[in-house]
Amino acid sequence: MNWKCALMDLPYGGGKGGIACDPRGMSLGELERLTRRYTMEMIPFINPETDVMAPDMGTNEQTMGWIADTYSTHAGHLVPSIVTGKPLTLQGSKGRTKATGYGVAFCARKALEKLGLPVGGATAIIQGFGNVGSHAAATFSSYGVKVTGVADVAGAIWNATGLDTAKLRDHVAQAGTVVGFAAAEPISPAQLLCQPCDILAPCALDRAITGENAPMLRCRILAEGANGPTTPEADRILDARNDIFVIPDILCNAGGVIVSYFEWVQNLQRFQWEEPEVIGKLEVILEKAIGKVAEFAQRHHLPNRMAAQALAIKTVADSKAARGLFP
Amino acid sequence: MNWKCALMDLPYGGGKGGIACDPRGMSLGELERLTRRYTMEMIPFINPETDVMAPDMGTNEQTMGWIADTYSTHAGHLVPSIVTGKPLTLQGSKGRTKATGYGVAFCARKALEKLGLPVGGATAIIQGFGNVGSHAAATFSSYGVKVTGVADVAGAIWNATGLDTAKLRDHVAQAGTVVGFAAAEPISPAQLLCQPCDILAPCALDRAITGENAPMLRCRILAEGANGPTTPEADRILDARNDIFVIPDILCNAGGVIVSYFEWVQNLQRFQWEEPEVIGKLEVILEKAIGKVAEFAQRHHLPNRMAAQALAIKTVADSKAARGLFP
Amino acid sequence: MNWKCALMDLPYGGGKGGIACDPRGMSLGELERLTRRYTMEMIPFINPETDVMAPDMGTNEQTMGWIADTYSTHAGHLVPSIVTGKPLTLQGSKGRTKATGYGVAFCARKALEKLGLPVGGATAIIQGFGNVGSHAAATFSSYGVKVTGVADVAGAIWNATGLDTAKLRDHVAQAGTVVGFAAAEPISPAQLLCQPCDILAPCALDRAITGENAPMLRCRILAEGANGPTTPEADRILDARNDIFVIPDILCNAGGVIVSYFEWVQNLQRFQWEEPEVIGKLEVILEKAIGKVAEFAQRHHLPNRMAAQALAIKTVADSKAARGLFP
Amino acid sequence: MNWKCALMDLPYGGGKGGIACDPRGMSLGELERLTRRYTMEMIPFINPETDVMAPDMGTNEQTMGWIADTYSTHAGHLVPSIVTGKPLTLQGSKGRTKATGYGVAFCARKALEKLGLPVGGATAIIQGFGNVGSHAAATFSSYGVKVTGVADVAGAIWNATGLDTAKLRDHVAQAGTVVGFAAAEPISPAQLLCQPCDILAPCALDRAITGENAPMLRCRILAEGANGPTTPEADRILDARNDIFVIPDILCNAGGVIVSYFEWVQNLQRFQWEEPEVIGKLEVILEKAIGKVAEFAQRHHLPNRMAAQALAIKTVADSKAARGLFP
Amino acid sequence: MNWKCALMDLPYGGGKGGIACDPRGMSLGELERLTRRYTMEMIPFINPETDVMAPDMGTNEQTMGWIADTYSTHAGHLVPSIVTGKPLTLQGSKGRTKATGYGVAFCARKALEKLGLPVGGATAIIQGFGNVGSHAAATFSSYGVKVTGVADVAGAIWNATGLDTAKLRDHVAQAGTVVGFAAAEPISPAQLLCQPCDILAPCALDRAITGENAPMLRCRILAEGANGPTTPEADRILDARNDIFVIPDILCNAGGVIVSYFEWVQNLQRFQWEEPEVIGKLEVILEKAIGKVAEFAQRHHLPNRMAAQALAIKTVADSKAARGLFP
Amino acid sequence: MNWKCALMDLPYGGGKGGIACDPRGMSLGELERLTRRYTMEMIPFINPETDVMAPDMGTNEQTMGWIADTYSTHAGHLVPSIVTGKPLTLQGSKGRTKATGYGVAFCARKALEKLGLPVGGATAIIQGFGNVGSHAAATFSSYGVKVTGVADVAGAIWNATGLDTAKLRDHVAQAGTVVGFAAAEPISPAQLLCQPCDILAPCALDRAITGENAPMLRCRILAEGANGPTTPEADRILDARNDIFVIPDILCNAGGVIVSYFEWVQNLQRFQWEEPEVIGKLEVILEKAIGKVAEFAQRHHLPNRMAAQALAIKTVADSKAARGLFP
Repeated sequence: MNWKCALMDLPYGGGKGGIACDPRGMSLGELERLTRRYTMEMIPFINPETDVMAPDMGTNEQTMGWIADTYSTHAGHLVPSIVTGKPLTLQGSKGRTKATGYGVAFCARKALEKLGLPVGGATAIIQGFGNVGSHAAATFSSYGVKVTGVADVAGAIWNATGLDTAKLRDHVAQAGTVVGFAAAEPISPAQLLCQPCDILAPCALDRAITGENAPMLRCRILAEGANGPTTPEADRILDARNDIFVIPDILCNAGGVIVSYFEWVQNLQRFQWEEPEVIGKLEVILEKAIGKVAEFAQRHHLPNRMAAQALAIKTVADSKAARGLFP
Repeated sequence: MNWKCALMDLPYGGGKGGIACDPRGMSLGELERLTRRYTMEMIPFINPETDVMAPDMGTNEQTMGWIADTYSTHAGHLVPSIVTGKPLTLQGSKGRTKATGYGVAFCARKALEKLGLPVGGATAIIQGFGNVGSHAAATFSSYGVKVTGVADVAGAIWNATGLDTAKLRDHVAQAGTVVGFAAAEPISPAQLLCQPCDILAPCALDRAITGENAPMLRCRILAEGANGPTTPEADRILDARNDIFVIPDILCNAGGVIVSYFEWVQNLQRFQWEEPEVIGKLEVILEKAIGKVAEFAQRHHLPNRMAAQALAIKTVADSKAARGLFP
Repeated sequence: MNWKCALMDLPYGGGKGGIACDPRGMSLGELERLTRRYTMEMIPFINPETDVMAPDMGTNEQTMGWIADTYSTHAGHLVPSIVTGKPLTLQGSKGRTKATGYGVAFCARKALEKLGLPVGGATAIIQGFGNVGSHAAATFSSYGVKVTGVADVAGAIWNATGLDTAKLRDHVAQAGTVVGFAAAEPISPAQLLCQPCDILAPCALDRAITGENAPMLRCRILAEGANGPTTPEADRILDARNDIFVIPDILCNAGGVIVSYFEWVQNLQRFQWEEPEVIGKLEVILEKAIGKVAEFAQRHHLPNRMAAQALAIKTVADSKAARGLFP
Repeated sequence: MNWKCALMDLPYGGGKGGIACDPRGMSLGELERLTRRYTMEMIPFINPETDVMAPDMGTNEQTMGWIADTYSTHAGHLVPSIVTGKPLTLQGSKGRTKATGYGVAFCARKALEKLGLPVGGATAIIQGFGNVGSHAAATFSSYGVKVTGVADVAGAIWNATGLDTAKLRDHVAQAGTVVGFAAAEPISPAQLLCQPCDILAPCALDRAITGENAPMLRCRILAEGANGPTTPEADRILDARNDIFVIPDILCNAGGVIVSYFEWVQNLQRFQWEEPEVIGKLEVILEKAIGKVAEFAQRHHLPNRMAAQALAIKTVADSKAARGLFP
Repeated sequence: MNWKCALMDLPYGGGKGGIACDPRGMSLGELERLTRRYTMEMIPFINPETDVMAPDMGTNEQTMGWIADTYSTHAGHLVPSIVTGKPLTLQGSKGRTKATGYGVAFCARKALEKLGLPVGGATAIIQGFGNVGSHAAATFSSYGVKVTGVADVAGAIWNATGLDTAKLRDHVAQAGTVVGFAAAEPISPAQLLCQPCDILAPCALDRAITGENAPMLRCRILAEGANGPTTPEADRILDARNDIFVIPDILCNAGGVIVSYFEWVQNLQRFQWEEPEVIGKLEVILEKAIGKVAEFAQRHHLPNRMAAQALAIKTVADSKAARGLFP
Repeated sequence: MNWKCALMDLPYGGGKGGIACDPRGMSLGELERLTRRYTMEMIPFINPETDVMAPDMGTNEQTMGWIADTYSTHAGHLVPSIVTGKPLTLQGSKGRTKATGYGVAFCARKALEKLGLPVGGATAIIQGFGNVGSHAAATFSSYGVKVTGVADVAGAIWNATGLDTAKLRDHVAQAGTVVGFAAAEPISPAQLLCQPCDILAPCALDRAITGENAPMLRCRILAEGANGPTTPEADRILDARNDIFVIPDILCNAGGVIVSYFEWVQNLQRFQWEEPEVIGKLEVILEKAIGKVAEFAQRHHLPNRMAAQALAIKTVADSKAARGLFP
């Protein structure tokens, strides 16, 4: 998280905390009491200027709403900036839901442009059709990029002429899986990853690209929508192949944390931005970051992943140097 | 106020307070001491995050300046965000004076568009030529809408080809009334309301549209610039007639509170917006609100007024649900 | 400073403080300890709402970084808004370095336009090629204004067809002076000031335009990039000549403090503006100020300098009146 | 309350607040949630320096404990000084339970001394044997004053040689009433009040001494342990009789609020006093007050009650004068 | 002040501030407004933990009351500890008025004991009969010390068998001077100082003991009730004579600041001490200080004044060393 | 620590923290920088109301002074209550150095009294002559208790008629050990523990009384001045013997933390107590605690150690119950 924020020049660090419990077995009342107690215990350690909470596994918008309410009741007035990922009605940000998926597609598009490939008519294969994958798919469609294959836990589908991603979304809303989508043919998920395409976007689990399938990939661009989708072994193979433009996860899926940051900024300003403004500012940050990474990689003959990591570390180091150590 | 803010999605509630006195009989020194004492007494209960003051009956920019100064002296630094309606020189907002009248005309224009009527050449009759009515008139003129009649407490005037609203303003500045304006003929105020026109904008007192005149209105759009200009009885008649597009007051005259909110936002950001930016952001909010109300009214077969009220209540209810109750 | 800020409508006052010492003889460690001690001693008197520090003689970005770090360590979280002129990596503002020089050229351009003179092909002579002069030169070039002469402490150069300011900057970076620049001929600094040109921009020391050379100036516009470059005696001569449009220093070199103010605003909002946005907002403020000054000078038959000063005083007086005195 | 505190020179004002509910029908959980919600709502209005809570009808030590805990959880550390009447284990004060009753007996003793009557062997009749009456009785016994009669809601008892107040307390603990106490004979409560005695101490309800029984009292000292035990009519009769030394309630039963004040002081100092120290300081305050009242009454030929009230008002008035009014 | 506090081990430093004006020519309203404005301006620089105000020339209890009220209104609750010298009704300290004079007499008595002289029947001459001198006189009387002479600006009186100081006080209250007191004979002030006595206490102006009269003093103890009553020249003479025990002013008249400190402590504790407790604690501090000074003087063969000063400096130096310098 | 404080009814919990380093190898400058850095890092977690520091292994008064200074510089004024164990010159407490040893002797004396043994002429053997042992020895002497033997790491000494503890202290100050003290004969430390005596006070290391020597002890009272001087095995043997009155460590050596608490209270009150007051209040607390433990042990037929522990737990449990759990 630290490095992702540093690479995006967001004034954020990183850190995770949570409650060791299984929320799936709890009633709504139990979840609320648990969340409020946790928030009260955290009050000495958080505030909008030092540490801001955000959703992760096992939490949702309602959880963030409880956190905001508990903190705000304590503060005596609404403090929306204490937590991001809030419902829109509690000063959440427009565009937050789609931000990660949108960013994946946007980064892939910028990569196409850098490689001198046409955007319209390019092809993309997406692993995962959850929040990230489905919004990436919709964004690809809006760019004229054909989504030719999609995989999820239940299986995978393929249509060489491009899937209708809006209809696919409706299908998944009902069926719970991409499998069985009418205008497509089934394909094994493992096979799907190795189909020829311009963009391969693993947007589901980590460790999707392995030492096994890395040599067989037939994409031009690997857009890492998931966190850690490429194993170190696969990474070495990709580096050696040197024919795939990798957009590393800390860059490719940074859309989510960027819009979380935007939510915080809007909350501090007490002014909501309309969705186009959110998306526009998101694009500015992503474009600058991808340019920086590509330029650094080229100049120092580094893989993109290492370039991204190096730039992130440099950003933190430069800040530290500019501040000094005191006392 | 609560519902007006909720309908506009402003992060504000409502509340009124004041001093039981007649400021008209007081010297400037008495007014200042009265205002400062009141502000000091209110200090435990107000701050930019919990409760922000704003002008109302018997107060003006100077009063708001004293409030800002008293609070700021107490705080040890200028806190412009404690009160809105301040003079420009104390971080008031550009465009605030004209905001309500501008909003009335803007809402009426949006109604014309919704009804498929041309804006240029449309006709408007305005009751009242104070701060609201005169700025509505000027805005109508800038849209190419002809202001054919204007009434005030002293009488009413009429010109079927449209009044020159800039000259009318100069006339009123000197004469203190619209009566006697050269390029117009006199008409009785009661008659004026029942003249045919596209837009009728009551911008003066409440209870202007009554059970008596409601059946006789010959406008297409009723733009409620005043607060509560339509009696409940008149309202029932208008609902039954079903041929007049009513823009209810909590929507139509919300321009003032919106720009008050903008003033607060600018003060929090310590950055002033130029007038075009203020007006542009005002239009975004009003257009969204009028669209929401019209859509909701149509979908649920409700009068606009009830739709607006329902949406406002729903906004508050959704927020309450998202926060929960604690402890 | 007070008057400069007032003229620009910035919500800032003025004030200077410092340590009586010679930083040139100090080690980096001594400078850091000195700065941190000073900052700690100042903590009761500064905060983002009451008094904000900024660089001046003998300090640089690193000094501002130490101030920010000391204050932030004390506060328990980063408080970038406590000081401006910070390194970019600590939330400094884009465009700050070039702001003063850019503003000088921009003001001169607006003066050309007011005088009805063409901008493209106009000529400018610049005294000083430090931070202010060199950025003024670059900006002139970008406008198509020919920089025909530049002076610094070591001497001056001249090229009637215009100097290549980008190459000149490279030359100075190496040689440490403009003297010796290939594509130019030498000229004595005193002579240079009296060469015919559209714009003469003294951007170095104070007291550059004196009773001696004022009668001999052959410029149409005097753009005061330095603080106090014109002696009172010279000022009287210029007023009497009445053929030179003087852009007084509190207007002409205000670009620096304006962007310092922007840095503070960005820090309060926790959101960085891209350079074009910074420059755009800078131009809005400068253009408004120059228009106001020129209009006031014309209306009251005053020299520009007196008009600027009068407007600044009026702004402060109006604010004071709007606040009143309490207790 | 205000006058009682003023008369005792405590730096306290007065004020009452509460929840309109019947706590007797509520579960412990309901009471706790009710108390905590109330405390949270009160947080903007209370703190150890502005307003301190204390128990009254329908509350007890546990309620005060919840208040302390809710406020302290909010503050982030134990703030015992936010509420008095806390359990000893939460920094309550030693001696608080007995304070009011002790004070009644102490005042009566001082009155005996003022009247030149011997303390040992004096007789006292007490109405009420709750917290106030029973501790008054025990204190009388410790002084060698014979308690010859006690009444409660169920009846009254009489023993001309003096009751064993320790045994009586045990009896009441079991029987729930003084009635049936072995070493005494029954008497009607109304009759009891009119028995001859040195001290009559109504320590139960208000309006115990009425126009009816006032002429028949045969005591030398009326020690008002209850609040308002003497009706205005009875008061006039006593004033006219002029043979009974009245210790008015705001003086006589002030022991409770004095020790509440001591609890607050101990909490501010974070240091508990042993019970003898509490009682010693209580005596100092009561003795000073009773002396002040008697002296003032004598000097101005006033009844004690009026003297007490006048002194209380004077104390507040002097403080107000010393502060002035600002702004 | 710094040294006086250090010598007494009070946790106070020193510092003076004020308004350059002549309060004698001002109305009560002007004085109040002046005081409140001054207090508001001082608010950023004072608080009970950093800087506490106290009365000095041209101010009185009422002034301190206004300061307390202004600060307290600002704070939102009574903050008595912001200023000492308050009226008793605003939490001033008992015993404060008499403290300095009492301390002078107490120190002189301790000196008598150190010199092995009897206290009862000893003789004292006092210069000045204002607040310091008159309370010193009363205290001497209470010790059995005979006050044989008193001087004031109008003259001096003498009675070898001892003056009745209580009657003298009454006389001065009426006559405004000691001159004319019945039970005494007149004497010139200059002569009075040189009469034989055990204790000479200059309690009026500075520079009372000069190079001229120092050789002629016939006292055993010089108790400096005034500030700086002995000139440096006189001091050298006394050192040389070596037969007079000098109680230097920073020790002898420290009673006032000690009780000011006690007032602050009582205010912090929100608990008033009775006068005997105040006087008792005052004696503990003075006795410890005089013992320390005498012991140090003896051990290092120093005059008392130098010993007192050295001990004061040592106290500050030790504290500084224990804290260190940071950052 | 928690249980020790609970048993003494101090409003303190327990907790330890520190820096993993060896201070013995560090320069004073390193120690100061280390301490200040640590303090700054701890600032979000400590304050006089939540967590107060105190000295332990590897720290001393100077360390506490640095902590106080760092915290106070941060706070802007001296906050002595942030740390106890400060030098006297920085508001440390009188009597703190001797407190633990004094408490050991005082508890032993109370035990003698409980057992009906004479205090004067009783005999005591002390293991350890550091801060605890030497002050215990001095206190025993002041009670008339004969100290017949003392051991330290270098050996042990014995004198059946009692050692002169003041001379022993001088001897140790020079020799660094008790060994070689003239007026005594040597004895082996192991033997010493088993000599007949009234009081055996192990004041050095833990695990001094073991399964081996426990059966051979010939004391009547075991006063545990050290922490954990008795092994669990020894404890079982002593319980079984049932002829030795054990004063468990959490009671016997609580003098130190009690006076640390007093230091905090004095700092909060900004008023220093004289040593007799400190010692007097210490005795009150210890006497109450020892009485409570003995009574509880007797009533429930428990060893003293278990009684002390049970009472401590009960105190914490009662407080928790009185507060409840929220939210």
